[in-house]
Amino acid sequence: MKQLEELPERKRDQHENVQESEKQPLSSVKSSVFLVQWKPCRETHSTVKDFLLKLQRCLGAVCGMQWYAYATLGITMALLSFLMDFSVAKMLGAQQWLYGQLEGNFLLQFLCWTLYPACLCALAATFCQSICPFSTGSGIPEVRTMLAGIDMPLYLSLTNMFSKFLGLFCTLAAGSTVFLGKVGPFVHLSTMFAAYLDNMFSLLQGIKKEKTSDMLVVAAAVGVASCFGAPVSGVLFSVEVMGSHYSLRHYFPCFFSAACGALTFRFFSVWSGDMETVQALFKTNFPSALPFYPLEIVLFAFLGLLCGAVGCCYLFCHRWILQFTKTNPLFIRMQTEKGLYSAGVVFFLACLTFPPSTGQYMASEYTTKELLTSLLDCRQWSSLSHNASVHQELSLKWNTSEMPLLLSLAFFLLMKIWMLVLACTLPLPAGYFMPMFVLGAAGGRLLGEGVAHVFSTGVVFGHHWDSVYPGVYALAGAAALSGAVTHTLSPALLAVELTGQFSHAVPILLATLLANGLARSGNRPSFYDAISINKKLPHLPSLVKAYPQISLTTVAHILEKDSVQLQKAAGPEEVRHIVVASVQLQIPVVDSEGAYSMMSVLELQTLFVADKGKLVGCLTWSKMKEILQALAKEN
Amino acid sequence: MKQLEELPERKRDQHENVQESEKQPLSSVKSSVFLVQWKPCRETHSTVKDFLLKLQRCLGAVCGMQWYAYATLGITMALLSFLMDFSVAKMLGAQQWLYGQLEGNFLLQFLCWTLYPACLCALAATFCQSICPFSTGSGIPEVRTMLAGIDMPLYLSLTNMFSKFLGLFCTLAAGSTVFLGKVGPFVHLSTMFAAYLDNMFSLLQGIKKEKTSDMLVVAAAVGVASCFGAPVSGVLFSVEVMGSHYSLRHYFPCFFSAACGALTFRFFSVWSGDMETVQALFKTNFPSALPFYPLEIVLFAFLGLLCGAVGCCYLFCHRWILQFTKTNPLFIRMQTEKGLYSAGVVFFLACLTFPPSTGQYMASEYTTKELLTSLLDCRQWSSLSHNASVHQELSLKWNTSEMPLLLSLAFFLLMKIWMLVLACTLPLPAGYFMPMFVLGAAGGRLLGEGVAHVFSTGVVFGHHWDSVYPGVYALAGAAALSGAVTHTLSPALLAVELTGQFSHAVPILLATLLANGLARSGNRPSFYDAISINKKLPHLPSLVKAYPQISLTTVAHILEKDSVQLQKAAGPEEVRHIVVASVQLQIPVVDSEGAYSMMSVLELQTLFVADKGKLVGCLTWSKMKEILQALAKEN
Repeated sequence: MKQLEELPERKRDQHENVQESEKQPLSSVKSSVFLVQWKPCRETHSTVKDFLLKLQRCLGAVCGMQWYAYATLGITMALLSFLMDFSVAKMLGAQQWLYGQLEGNFLLQFLCWTLYPACLCALAATFCQSICPFSTGSGIPEVRTMLAGIDMPLYLSLTNMFSKFLGLFCTLAAGSTVFLGKVGPFVHLSTMFAAYLDNMFSLLQGIKKEKTSDMLVVAAAVGVASCFGAPVSGVLFSVEVMGSHYSLRHYFPCFFSAACGALTFRFFSVWSGDMETVQALFKTNFPSALPFYPLEIVLFAFLGLLCGAVGCCYLFCHRWILQFTKTNPLFIRMQTEKGLYSAGVVFFLACLTFPPSTGQYMASEYTTKELLTSLLDCRQWSSLSHNASVHQELSLKWNTSEMPLLLSLAFFLLMKIWMLVLACTLPLPAGYFMPMFVLGAAGGRLLGEGVAHVFSTGVVFGHHWDSVYPGVYALAGAAALSGAVTHTLSPALLAVELTGQFSHAVPILLATLLANGLARSGNRPSFYDAISINKKLPHLPSLVKAYPQISLTTVAHILEKDSVQLQKAAGPEEVRHIVVASVQLQIPVVDSEGAYSMMSVLELQTLFVADKGKLVGCLTWSKMKEILQALAKEN
Repeated sequence: MKQLEELPERKRDQHENVQESEKQPLSSVKSSVFLVQWKPCRETHSTVKDFLLKLQRCLGAVCGMQWYAYATLGITMALLSFLMDFSVAKMLGAQQWLYGQLEGNFLLQFLCWTLYPACLCALAATFCQSICPFSTGSGIPEVRTMLAGIDMPLYLSLTNMFSKFLGLFCTLAAGSTVFLGKVGPFVHLSTMFAAYLDNMFSLLQGIKKEKTSDMLVVAAAVGVASCFGAPVSGVLFSVEVMGSHYSLRHYFPCFFSAACGALTFRFFSVWSGDMETVQALFKTNFPSALPFYPLEIVLFAFLGLLCGAVGCCYLFCHRWILQFTKTNPLFIRMQTEKGLYSAGVVFFLACLTFPPSTGQYMASEYTTKELLTSLLDCRQWSSLSHNASVHQELSLKWNTSEMPLLLSLAFFLLMKIWMLVLACTLPLPAGYFMPMFVLGAAGGRLLGEGVAHVFSTGVVFGHHWDSVYPGVYALAGAAALSGAVTHTLSPALLAVELTGQFSHAVPILLATLLANGLARSGNRPSFYDAISINKKLPHLPSLVKAYPQISLTTVAHILEKDSVQLQKAAGPEEVRHIVVASVQLQIPVVDSEGAYSMMSVLELQTLFVADKGKLVGCLTWSKMKEILQALAKEN
């Protein structure tokens, strides 16, 4: 509520707004929407208007109007997320029902399995291409660029929101064959809705507001929080996505809005009958009395390093394919027909996952959600497989007669990684976080099952290791791999929030830290950095990671043509600092023959140095943007 | 590991450092400690030196030396925290044993009960006063000021660390009579050790490093994490303590160091035999199948608002007593003899908590840790009190024969709040967070027991509310009250990390958010703000909260005597922004007759505006500090 006094301009709740015109009766500011002269039922209108004005004053007395906007954002995104999950589940159920009905007819089953996702993806690709080409992909790289202060209105349009939502629906409805998630697009959808909310409130109040990134930062937190009902990791994600500096004035709004979103999302689950009460999405039942042996910490650390290494390999493949799609002439020609290309790739993937073919070795009948649930199962598979009934239950999906369980997991991992790399080239709105999370879980499960199998047979280090839980390894692996690929730590907390159990937080955090450490070493670009560079987005932190030589380029060098105005050699470290620290800024660039040496400037990383010398140059914010865009295009 | 390339200067691990001199064999930088000419056994020396150099190179090859420093910081603080807990438990056990031995002799028991804490506190006060007067109090306000970029070397000295540690030991050993905690002092101790570590590494490497706040920010996170073994809330605390901007380059080190600290702290608990494995400090057993009914959310929200209101009352009392101790002549005279004053106040408090007197109504035989454990008990007291054996167990402490259980809780709350306000005037190193956490737990328990009692008797809203857990209300109340008093949200996560159960995170977060909202409304200063203002610390955010008129003061107004140099009327909002955003900065203040109008400057909240006009003024960082100190003293 601290913001209330700092930002006197008030925003308005979406739910009771359309008729409201004035901020206060005394205020002379009139909204443009009420300047229409003729009204059909003037009296009713004024009664409603008075009532709404009173309501607004009542609401405003409790707290600033922006808090209602934050709440609206959280609640609406949670509603969208719930609707998405609900309808996708129905679509997947329909395919499964049809597939079941065609039992016995191999050809029809094959066509149902392959054409269903292929058609959906072709539809999504064509639709997005024709309505709004900017709606494809994850959206997080674009959000990061916008949060760094660069305007990208095309990425915030309502058309984009509409096409992204529908496209994402088709992608998710294609199921675990395409194996893509929804986190990234939801963060993007959330920022689009936040921008719309911000604009609408300004318009209704008749106030010309300066553009700020306030709502966008909050939206990033809400996107994650409403996707999983996980408020704290949402806020941590919004801290991480800022890239350089996080302003504390966003902290409380982020938490507030994320909590609203998470609470609403979980309430919808209760009301829809999915759950009896508000609880975690992938609730686990790991025993909390003895969650793990202290010595297991070493194994978790090893898992973290392993995930870090796998993450690096994956990122390398991803960068390679991004480059390949841009340079290979055949690929470029194929990608001109986006619908056809998508259909072709998805058909190929579906052939591989068709249960009577290789699909039987990688549990392809599971949906992504079922996959994760099965991987996080607290029981030990290898010991359970002797039990006939459980064996039956598992054998349906994981434990085929021909292939032992562990080999099946390894095969799943190997196949899915390159299939995911291929799926990343699809021009669809899709998230790439959840697939990595599931792959990490599979890797962790593999190690966990191995450990449990080895240690349950004898006494190791003087202990009977009879309560090793492979599910915990799966959870740690999930957090570590997804953290390594995205260079973030919030997956560790997300793993805790998704399962609702905190007893294993410490080993999960350790694994994520080590995986991150390995993945970040040597200035390697993250998954999002690679996309930023590939899409030529003007995002300096990504550029610096990918091309360290930029750090040596000076502003004067870039702006040689403007050398009359710019004589100071400011390092890009400063430029980056300036760019990210402030949204709207005028940067005077001072003569290099001033009172202080330039060396000290660069060391201190100050914004600029000026003595009583004359000011000879002026570098505006728009100029800065041009430089950044030029930099992005150069490389 | 990303920092490695950004900061080429390497730090060294404390454990294998004393003999190491050179950064690399090629480096010409020689440490001053190795310039001694004569050495007794030159050969052995050089062998050891070579070995250590090789070791350092090996370590340096894995990751940058600063990571070893972060790990050392975390591990050492966890060790100190564990030692503190261990020895305090022994001291409290000794008192309890003595008190038990004197059973039957009322006078001796009274003397044992009252003189033991009184002597300890007198000792602590005298000791701190004579060794280092800066070691009293919490330390968090001072840490915030230092993190804002203001040098306070006296608060980072080794003497201070020594006296703070011993003083805190005495305070905690005085037990629940004094009822003070250890979080704040541990944050301060952590920053002191971090500064020492930083200096030592620089000295050994012979590098003159620029002073940065890197280690201090990490230390703030480690302080909290090592206190409770709670890494995530430690990092969130370090984000919150920054006041205005959080630099993302601290994020990964904070997590790393906090995880090291938390892991070590929990491992010590395992090794000492307290716990079988690494787990939460106050492990609870709330059922996770049906953690709470959806409609209970309303009650949690109510609890949050209630805690917010109580927090405001407490803060008002605290501000009043701070003012009173400064202005009342009698009090000022009393406080000159700090040892005597402490002994007197603690004797008075001990008389009140003496079990045969009013102490029997407020469970005064419990230590602070036992108090919290009993309040978080997952069973419902009111229903248990019919069970004879449990009744016996509880009646010893909470459920006296004369007073019903709920009345006893209410009495505890009423008495402890004003006793805590009084205890805050003691000139001792002590934390004020944990007492608020326990008081909040008591308040939550009171509401929870009431709710459970009312709802268990019948059907409300069509539900049989037979599984309402008062312990969950206690946890939510604890987070909400401590969050409201300190204006932070990290207690919500701390509550989760302390108990190791995530199933109730959403209602706890909701209660904390609402309590914070209420406590922050109207720009009220937080607990730490009040101390900052009382101690005249140059901390602008606190000053702005306490004296909103500062926002209207212009820099030109403050610096009237320097008006030749400063003609621009820059609002303090900008000044604050500049002060906190950068550690070392030169701010040119530009002529007010320039290209752009000043109005637009203030609206845009840009750092400054400059066109091609001449630069007429220069405001240095040291000047800025002077202004801030003057501001602090003025009010």
